[in-house]
Order: sequence, then C-alpha cells, then structure tokens
Amino acid sequence: MISVTRRYRFPAAHVLRSRALSDAENVSLYGQCANPSGHGHNYGLEVCVAGERDPRTGWIVPPEACDEIVRTRILDRFDHRLLNDDPLFRDLVPTAENIAIAVYRELAAPLGKAGSGRLARVGIIETPRNRFDYEETP
Amino acid sequence: MISVTRRYRFPAAHVLRSRALSDAENVSLYGQCANPSGHGHNYGLEVCVAGERDPRTGWIVPPEACDEIVRTRILDRFDHRLLNDDPLFRDLVPTAENIAIAVYRELAAPLGKAGSGRLARVGIIETPRNRFDYEETP
Amino acid sequence: MISVTRRYRFPAAHVLRSRALSDAENVSLYGQCANPSGHGHNYGLEVCVAGERDPRTGWIVPPEACDEIVRTRILDRFDHRLLNDDPLFRDLVPTAENIAIAVYRELAAPLGKAGSGRLARVGIIETPRNRFDYEETP
Amino acid sequence: MISVTRRYRFPAAHVLRSRALSDAENVSLYGQCANPSGHGHNYGLEVCVAGERDPRTGWIVPPEACDEIVRTRILDRFDHRLLNDDPLFRDLVPTAENIAIAVYRELAAPLGKAGSGRLARVGIIETPRNRFDYEETP
Amino acid sequence: MISVTRRYRFPAAHVLRSRALSDAENVSLYGQCANPSGHGHNYGLEVCVAGERDPRTGWIVPPEACDEIVRTRILDRFDHRLLNDDPLFRDLVPTAENIAIAVYRELAAPLGKAGSGRLARVGIIETPRNRFDYEETP
Amino acid sequence: MISVTRRYRFPAAHVLRSRALSDAENVSLYGQCANPSGHGHNYGLEVCVAGERDPRTGWIVPPEACDEIVRTRILDRFDHRLLNDDPLFRDLVPTAENIAIAVYRELAAPLGKAGSGRLARVGIIETPRNRFDYEETP
Repeated sequence: MISVTRRYRFPAAHVLRSRALSDAENVSLYGQCANPSGHGHNYGLEVCVAGERDPRTGWIVPPEACDEIVRTRILDRFDHRLLNDDPLFRDLVPTAENIAIAVYRELAAPLGKAGSGRLARVGIIETPRNRFDYEETP
Repeated sequence: MISVTRRYRFPAAHVLRSRALSDAENVSLYGQCANPSGHGHNYGLEVCVAGERDPRTGWIVPPEACDEIVRTRILDRFDHRLLNDDPLFRDLVPTAENIAIAVYRELAAPLGKAGSGRLARVGIIETPRNRFDYEETP
Repeated sequence: MISVTRRYRFPAAHVLRSRALSDAENVSLYGQCANPSGHGHNYGLEVCVAGERDPRTGWIVPPEACDEIVRTRILDRFDHRLLNDDPLFRDLVPTAENIAIAVYRELAAPLGKAGSGRLARVGIIETPRNRFDYEETP
Repeated sequence: MISVTRRYRFPAAHVLRSRALSDAENVSLYGQCANPSGHGHNYGLEVCVAGERDPRTGWIVPPEACDEIVRTRILDRFDHRLLNDDPLFRDLVPTAENIAIAVYRELAAPLGKAGSGRLARVGIIETPRNRFDYEETP
Repeated sequence: MISVTRRYRFPAAHVLRSRALSDAENVSLYGQCANPSGHGHNYGLEVCVAGERDPRTGWIVPPEACDEIVRTRILDRFDHRLLNDDPLFRDLVPTAENIAIAVYRELAAPLGKAGSGRLARVGIIETPRNRFDYEETP
Repeated sequence: MISVTRRYRFPAAHVLRSRALSDAENVSLYGQCANPSGHGHNYGLEVCVAGERDPRTGWIVPPEACDEIVRTRILDRFDHRLLNDDPLFRDLVPTAENIAIAVYRELAAPLGKAGSGRLARVGIIETPRNRFDYEETP
C-alpha cells in the first residue's frame, strides 16, 4: 500500500464546554480548557490518502488538488477562528477527537474523487505533545 | 559570555484589535487576526539568562528557580487564557512584539535575583513560522 | 478508529550489556553501547490509546488521567535514572525494543480502565534518528 | 508487533517530467516541478523493520547492519545526485511515491536477511509538509 | 531591542562549481557537491527585522508586507529552481554563505521601507545540520 | 558579519555531583540530577564559526575540515560515554554551562586555523527545553 500524507496548519481558538452540562460540571470535567474566553492552538492537520499511483503522473493525488480541497473545505473555515462558532461544533464539544472526525467527513468524498486513492486517515496535532488520528478502512 | 535559554509553552488565544481604532480600521490593519471571537496559538516562550556561572553549582541560574519564576509570573497567568483578558493587554494590542516586551518586564527583576546572571532576552514563538525577540543590553 | 497519542520525555542512562555474555562478546555485539559507565538519551515516549469517544466528554481518555498513570508508572521510575538499575532490566538488556514492550505491559491495564479505549501502541524514541513501536491488536 | 524505524537523509535533486508526454503536457501536469534544470530536497528516508526480537541481543535488526545496507544500497546512490540520472528513474518519473516503492524493492531482501524481522515500511519525507509511505503486509 | 523573525522555505537545486577552477580542482574542493547534474535542498530562509514597534499597530513590520517582499524578491525567483541559473550566481558559487549575503542585499532596501525596522539578519538553513547567518549592524 | 553554524549530536551520560560537597548537599543542590548511577541526554552541539568567506571557495570554513575537528576533539571523546569519566570533568561538575565552555576551549584553536573565520559560539542543547551558549567576542 502506498500513501501520501500532506500537512497543514491553522491557528484557531476553542473552548471545551458542553451545553448539556452545568458550569460546575464543565469546569470539573475540562479544567482550564473550559475557560469561557477560550484558548488556542497552532493546530496541525495531516491528510493521508492511500491507494494506487496514477500510471500517467506517478501521483496518488495531485498535490494541488489536495491542497485546494483542504483549503476550501477546512482552512478557509477554521483558520484564525473560534471553532465553537462553526456549525459543526454547535452541539459537539470541539475536542481534538471530534475535530478529527468532523474533518474526515468533510474531506472523504472530495478527496476520493480527486485522484486514484481514498482518504485513509486524518490527524489533528493539537500541541507538540498530543495528536489525534481518525482512520477508516475500506 | 555564557547563557542558558529555557523554553516553555502556553496555549492561549488572542485578538488583534485596538480600542483606538474603528472596526473597519481594525479589520483593514489586522485582517483575519481581528476576528472578534479570537484565535489562538501554542505560544513558545524562551527565557535567556546570561552572566557568570555560580562557582559552587556550575549553573548561571538554578533551573528550578527559573521554572518557578516563569510559572508563577507568566504561565499561571497566560496559559489556556485569552490574552486580551489580562490587565497587561487592556490598552495594548497583544501582538507578539508586545507580549515579548511585557514578559521581559515581568521576569527581569526576579530572574536577576535568582542566580548570578541577568535576563538577556525573551523570545516569543507564535507559530513555527515566526518568532519575536526582545533583548536589553546592560 | 479514533486514537489519541500523548508524548512524554524522560532523560535516562542505559548500558547494553548482557549477563549471559562475556565482556568481549558484549563489546563485539553492542560496540560503544556496551561502555560500562553507561551513556544516555532524552527518551521520548508515545502512548497511543484507541477506542471510542466517551459520549459525555468527547474524549477517548481524560488527558489528566493518562498523564497521571504514565507519571506514576513510568516517569517517576525511569526519569533521571540508569535504566539498568530498574528491576525490569535486571535480566533483560534495556534495548529500546525491550523498553517499549516493558512500558506497554506496565500501562495496558491501568489505561484500559481510565477511559473508553485500550492501549494500542507504545513508542520509544531513543534519538531523533530511531524509534521503536510495540503494538497489540485486540 | 514490535518494530524499529531508522531515519536517514539524502539531499538530492529531481525533475518531474515524463518522456511519454510533450513539454506542454509536462508543464501542465507538474507545474514548477517540471522545470528542466531541476530542483531539490533534503529527502528524509524512514526504514521500518518489524518482527521478533533476537533473544540474544534484544534487537530486531542490528543497527549497524541496517545502516550499512541503507548506505550501500540507497545513500551512496542517491545522496547529492540528480535522481533522474539513476537507472531506476530512466523510465519512471521520480515522484516521491515512485521513490518510496523503488527504495522498498532495493532494501526488502537484504534487510530480511540481516536480522529477525522483515521490511515493513519505507517512508520518504520530501519536505516538512509531505511524506509518502509504502508498506507491504506479509 | 525588539525583532521579528519570519521563516520561509524554498526547495531548490544547486551545484558547487567555480568557473575559475578546473574540473579536477572543483571536485577536489567541493567533493560530491560538485556533481554537475546538481543536488538540492529544502532551503529554509529566516528574515529578521529589528527596530521599533509602530505605535499604531504594535508591529515592527506588517507581516503581509514582509511576506509580499520576500515572495516577489526571493521565493518567486529561487523556488523550484536551479540556483546556478539565476544571474546572481553566474559568477558566484551558490554556497549558502553566498546565498545569505545575496538575499540580504535584495531584501534590505524594501524591508527598510515597509515598517519601522531594518533588516538585521538573513539566515539560510541548508539542511537540519547547518545554517548560515549574515547580519549588518547599523 | 557572516557565520556558519554546524550541528552535531552525541548521546552521553552525566552525574551532577561535586566532590567539594557532601552527599546531602549534592542532593539538595542538584536533585534528581545527582543520582549516582547517572542519567543521560542526546546532547546537541552547535559550532558557530564567523568571519570572512574564502574568496576561492565561498566558504568560511570547509565543512569537512570542521567536521573532522569536531569529531576528533569532541565526538570521539564524549559520544556514548559518561562525561564524568573525562579528565575535563574530574574537578568540574559537567553542567551544560561547563560543557559548553570546555568544548569552546578545545575547538577554538584548531577551528581558527582551519578556515578564514574564528570560533564565535558553542551551543550545547541538553534537552529540547534548554540550551546553553558560550561566545567570545574578538
């Protein structure tokens, strides 16, 4: 199996706070991550596409096509924003796990059409000390 | 000259928006950094202390003393916060330049007393693609 | 599948030397790594927990619970030590392969109870030029 | 499963240009990568060997044996060269996907004989923003 | 003194070969770097501007202005190219030392006009193991 | 001013313990770094040579000459060793400050003769979170 992983970045803010919980419960669960003014990260985003090489180009997916999809579907939407403002996170706490799954769902269809591979994995790097990976097998 | 540089991290959010300017002027100056909900970074903080080695320990400053000063003066205050909420940035836009200078002023006195050196430089690493350094020469 | 990987560090020393072998055999096998005074590394440790998100928190494992387990079971034990002094390595040469497997066995049970996932992989990064991964599939 | 991954580097140049295509088609497909004078990268190469630990050494593969195989088969051949000059890439455009597969084929047999594991994966890191992995399962 | 350092990248190829020397002398001096087909690097470029903060913006230089100058003067010219093709290196061997000085001279005037600081330093990072810095003091 | 900085690595062990102090004083001063069995680091070493470019080569110092000096004077001596075993640290606690100064003194003379520059700075990177720099100005 051959795969290509492309890496992107988007600085953004988030607040870990569930509408289903009281203020005290949120603070108890999420600690300083529940601070209502928010805090932020230089999020790293890895997009891994696996499949066959296109016999004409030697590429699994043309890099510019991949970049364009990630830019329009994710970066234009999350970059320099408060993630909680996005409709995706209206009813979903923007933990990195939830971000990874939400990004996978946005990208799987267009990346599947852009080349000869399929979206195998989305990685969210929240800080240099933690990362989150969502993968689907065919 | 011998120096030690210790590196810290604090995820935080900020908004680039000046009270002295109109909304349109803020957007024109700061672009997406003026988004009122804020965005964030994994800020890196470098603290460089230069001077003489203590003949007894071979250290310029005891590492735990340095860590304690940085933790109580800066990290406890900025970590997982919106920087604009801090009194330091009530009337000062929290650009990384302004953060570096504010941090220097908080740390210079206690670090000068903690060992045999002086605070030579504070570096703020906002993203992997930019950094800001404030230094004072004796 | 969704997973979270948290990264830790512990500076430590080790000696590659087997009691079952002669001095000459140890030097022949392990070269400069057999130097009896030891040498050391800034070991990186990656702990990957995979599973389901807790529907209440959006987390696979609460980060503080994970950190507490790794700290008490591994870091407090290995950090700033000679690994050969640890009972785990009385009869086992502390190659990074052996360290990875030993760490996995220490962490699997408590991490399995700490959240809604299971310990999927332990990675030991000995230097920036090599890494070692032990994984168990369910 | 236990694995060791060793990382190497070789600065090299390449040109993305297929003999089966016209000049205009090459430029249209590969953009600035088709520039006939070439451009280059600090290629990173990851070699992942998975298997059993040798009970005598605690290693999957002796590190020096691995380094020697990678040096003689790959680094001596690609380091500080134009990859298009290599016979492997006479009729194959040296995309990173093609490099990863070619390297795997050169290394699988000798690495399989050098220890108690098998070559599980070859990774090519072309820039800090993309990587390519080729793996074969037994 | 306050400074901002912005970091850029441009993959490029080069050949170390002086027209003033014979083929044998070039190989003797530059070794494998004299390979006539060229080799390449993911060059890192650091641009450090030092000076005063603009009292209105809190910036030394507006980041977009800096990026635009570096893009039009350097990146559009060197990115994905063979540096020896550039007029700057017609009679000058493109060692990283020479690249750093040439870049400084291209950038000093426009960056001096773009904000309230001056170009203090240009850094060229050729590989993760070497870097080259050219600085001018006022 | 133009400078070149080359980066090296040497895994080594050390113990922070002064012969002039009692056991209790050592533990009180150095904490877990005083553990008598030692602990270790992947030390990074930066060697910065500043000066003039050689008009014939465009180099400040030939990279192979620099590497050879660092290898024979420092790496062959410290790599995979306990630093306390070295005569340099018989009466000097091997803090990173002391290592930086000792390395500077070993390298200054030979590097001054190897090219058209002078040794401007030696940096010791003990962990990713601290570094130590010793510089002498002419």
